[in-house]
Amino acid sequence: MKIAVLGTGGGARAHIAKLAELGHEVHVGTRDPKATLARTEPDMMGTPPFATWLADHPGIELHTFADAAGHGELVINGIDGRNAVAALSAAAEQLAGKTLVDYAVPYVYNPDVEHPWPTPWGTMPKLDPCDTDSLAEQIQRTVPAAKVVKAFVTQEQDTVVDPQKAGAGEHTMFLAGEHADAKATVTDLLTAYGWTDILDLGPLVAARGMEMYAHMHSAIGFALGFGTPFGIKVVR
Amino acid sequence: MKIAVLGTGGGARAHIAKLAELGHEVHVGTRDPKATLARTEPDMMGTPPFATWLADHPGIELHTFADAAGHGELVINGIDGRNAVAALSAAAEQLAGKTLVDYAVPYVYNPDVEHPWPTPWGTMPKLDPCDTDSLAEQIQRTVPAAKVVKAFVTQEQDTVVDPQKAGAGEHTMFLAGEHADAKATVTDLLTAYGWTDILDLGPLVAARGMEMYAHMHSAIGFALGFGTPFGIKVVR
Repeated sequence: MKIAVLGTGGGARAHIAKLAELGHEVHVGTRDPKATLARTEPDMMGTPPFATWLADHPGIELHTFADAAGHGELVINGIDGRNAVAALSAAAEQLAGKTLVDYAVPYVYNPDVEHPWPTPWGTMPKLDPCDTDSLAEQIQRTVPAAKVVKAFVTQEQDTVVDPQKAGAGEHTMFLAGEHADAKATVTDLLTAYGWTDILDLGPLVAARGMEMYAHMHSAIGFALGFGTPFGIKVVR
Repeated sequence: MKIAVLGTGGGARAHIAKLAELGHEVHVGTRDPKATLARTEPDMMGTPPFATWLADHPGIELHTFADAAGHGELVINGIDGRNAVAALSAAAEQLAGKTLVDYAVPYVYNPDVEHPWPTPWGTMPKLDPCDTDSLAEQIQRTVPAAKVVKAFVTQEQDTVVDPQKAGAGEHTMFLAGEHADAKATVTDLLTAYGWTDILDLGPLVAARGMEMYAHMHSAIGFALGFGTPFGIKVVR
């Protein structure tokens, strides 16, 4: 299958590598391919430059966001929450009729708040939108002809592509969206990733809960120790 | 142990009954005991009047919030989020030096929002505070001499007092707070309730994640079907 991954950060790379390993034709999108390839320094998260990574992953094509979306039958949005709506809006034509999986948390970094939450890397980002709207709903309103599915948002992306990293893979993946066929496509992909417990939370509005879970995910991560792979299992 | 439960709703009743069953001396607090006992109609959630319930649970004493807090060595706050800060502020003297467990979600009902979330019972309430503050932190700032522990907030209260209701009880209870001795007291209580996996999320700021999980909890509940008992297990 032709799959576009928009974004070149650590999370996007986990999907790109796994999809290539599964035999898919992967098209990667970035704002400015030349600038992305010219970068030689690690980013703010310490992720090595994309050109270095790409050299170890032959056969991956790098395009603009819109061109990558045009090549994909399925599109995975790995653009950070702050920039996703604008970038996807510019690719609306190429996204029409396609399944668009969004896993971004709409973080606002360095927030100026009265009661900051200190974390190992600075102040906890705040969420915008939050509570009465979600990034996934904003994206669906921005590209109404795409079929947005919120998924992959309640785990680190290296656990998303390899659920066995945590426990024996006995945890739950969540998805939400308005389009049953798109959710079926994402469920097939998740099954190929190794997921066995996939819970459909229903309409896209459930993405509010999935995105807001980010602070709970961080708190659990701090408690277990940074870098410990984990997931949550819905026990019923 | 002398334990005060502030509140007379369905969640508070689950704790009152279980604590009495465990042999504790339970003191129940309400705004106006006479008014509470005079009520003869079910509340907005369909919960029967407290006087009816009390008739089936002999030996339970009903007081004002402050008097109940004064009797308790450990205090459980079951006052709804909208009224908790004001009510606990009025009982600050009686709460000084005591462990105060808060399980409230700071819901604002009937919110006027641009993109409402329809639920089986109307529009999803919004959260206030949210993201950059939490009700638990507000309560700790309001009664600084109390030892606030956020707990019991990621499950229905009938599951909190009986974790075996979901799966075989193989799910996780979370707590957070600034006072290690208070967290140890709450851990002992949870162990008596039957919990085996209790994860300390650290400082009280983690309550933001626990309270914001409410929307994820609702979405999972809708997906499983209203009334299905469930919990989440941190798989690591």
